[in-house]
Amino acid sequence: MDKHTLLETRRRIAPFVHNTPVLTSHLLDEIVGAKLFFKCENFQKMGAFKMRGATNAIMQLTEKQRERGVVTHSSGNFAQALSLAAKSLGVPAYIVMPNNAPKVKRDAVLGYSGMVTDCESNIQAREQASAQIVAEKNATFIHPSNDLHVILGNATAAMELLEVHPNLNCLISPVGGGGLLAGTALAAHYFGTECVVIGGEPKVADDAFRSLQTGQIETNITTNTIADGLRTQLGDINFPILQKHVDHIIRVEEDEILKAMRLLWERLKIVVEPSSAVAFAAVIKNKTYFKDKTVGIILSGGNVDLDTLKFS
Amino acid sequence: MDKHTLLETRRRIAPFVHNTPVLTSHLLDEIVGAKLFFKCENFQKMGAFKMRGATNAIMQLTEKQRERGVVTHSSGNFAQALSLAAKSLGVPAYIVMPNNAPKVKRDAVLGYSGMVTDCESNIQAREQASAQIVAEKNATFIHPSNDLHVILGNATAAMELLEVHPNLNCLISPVGGGGLLAGTALAAHYFGTECVVIGGEPKVADDAFRSLQTGQIETNITTNTIADGLRTQLGDINFPILQKHVDHIIRVEEDEILKAMRLLWERLKIVVEPSSAVAFAAVIKNKTYFKDKTVGIILSGGNVDLDTLKFS
Repeated sequence: MDKHTLLETRRRIAPFVHNTPVLTSHLLDEIVGAKLFFKCENFQKMGAFKMRGATNAIMQLTEKQRERGVVTHSSGNFAQALSLAAKSLGVPAYIVMPNNAPKVKRDAVLGYSGMVTDCESNIQAREQASAQIVAEKNATFIHPSNDLHVILGNATAAMELLEVHPNLNCLISPVGGGGLLAGTALAAHYFGTECVVIGGEPKVADDAFRSLQTGQIETNITTNTIADGLRTQLGDINFPILQKHVDHIIRVEEDEILKAMRLLWERLKIVVEPSSAVAFAAVIKNKTYFKDKTVGIILSGGNVDLDTLKFS
Repeated sequence: MDKHTLLETRRRIAPFVHNTPVLTSHLLDEIVGAKLFFKCENFQKMGAFKMRGATNAIMQLTEKQRERGVVTHSSGNFAQALSLAAKSLGVPAYIVMPNNAPKVKRDAVLGYSGMVTDCESNIQAREQASAQIVAEKNATFIHPSNDLHVILGNATAAMELLEVHPNLNCLISPVGGGGLLAGTALAAHYFGTECVVIGGEPKVADDAFRSLQTGQIETNITTNTIADGLRTQLGDINFPILQKHVDHIIRVEEDEILKAMRLLWERLKIVVEPSSAVAFAAVIKNKTYFKDKTVGIILSGGNVDLDTLKFS
């Protein structure tokens, strides 16, 4: 791993992803007492940073592998990201989805030409269905977060932010499966100027917080968080990167996530998903730490179900 | 009125307003069958285009007038706009608000240092309270929409859009009090290339549609629309401009407004208020007319009460 690998990645995927805008707000700066730069991955293609990692992972495949296609299991943003990235690159995408996945998510995958395989809603069934497709089609399995090429692709969000604001004191992203935070950490390490990297995590699914404390990958006991993108677990590829390059993780309560999300909607006038608000909630919670610093916040995505969303 | 006056206006207020971004979406283009350019005034200071007109109106006052302050009666965006513009320019702002105005709006005005005077919730009480302040303070009354300087200020939104996309076939904005549509029409007339100007209006408050048909200012019989910024009436200053430069007005139903707003939230990932969605709803409704055209859509603002909003 070096600077060159990251620059290569950025150049490789640039034609297929948006260099998303960076928003600022005097009022939010005043609330925190810091200078905040919001990297808006909600404006990314298919509405989330996952497009970056998915694109990079597919582009690393050989011609032969591309012909055979890619497989993943996901009911969330990565299913859409892999489908759209595969479509852009002319590659077949097989998506294993639990049979209780919301229709809106299934439709989004189908809209991006992903081929959906149903399975029972548990991890064994998902993995079994994926393995079967891999065997039958000779297709390549791509993990949503525990894959080096996915991590490198994700890193390009923070790289873009650091290109515009190279002297950020801190960078903070949400942490779920660990793929975004690992990428953010690599970007800060190679392109930041003493830029401290912090993760924001829901208290009720704090495997990353505990893993960094114990030095081994811990599992979530509960995953009942509104931040549905962050219910997943760290993996053996991203965890060592977090250990090496992440300073600490701030845990936030569910009501703090909702309040932070509301502030983003009301003040930045943008639609972000609860997972995105976790990083901002962490900044609000630890104002003293961030006081007078320049802080980059990765807003991970904007795919929200407006039917079920309630602020009060 | 000439090109020069508009250019002067644009130069005058530029330091005090944002040149707001223009968003596009392949998916929304596909839905309509046209190329759409959304001018995002929801990202304007205080969250709406009203900042432009308010700023310009205050800047036209003499030093003496500025010292004495400005007055308006409004429970909506113009109250906030005049307060913030006045604050930026060091001018006292007196805002008459009905005593049943939502606390959140009152707080926003107070946050921008506006001085609030309560009155009963009817137009007579509002006008009387305003007149009293004008008399006592020798302050200048500024109308939210029926004021030439306000109209000229509003025109700068469409001017900015035409600077980037000079060959738009059509420009469409919502119409309520008529100040935004009049400004948009002037911008298109002086800076467009055969650019047709169209208004979007809620069916239940269609005074502008009927006024253009009869040739005289008609009043709203009902104003029970979710597009709360469009419940107001045309005035004698903006109506002649609409008569001269607006091609036609498209009326939309309440459920069409809500559907259009939802599409904007879900696809552009931005928070826009119902009034903004009226123009887009009109475009969706008349797809045949807009087919294969390049269409500029002014999204007027993003101040929404998230507590009361419901999509279904």
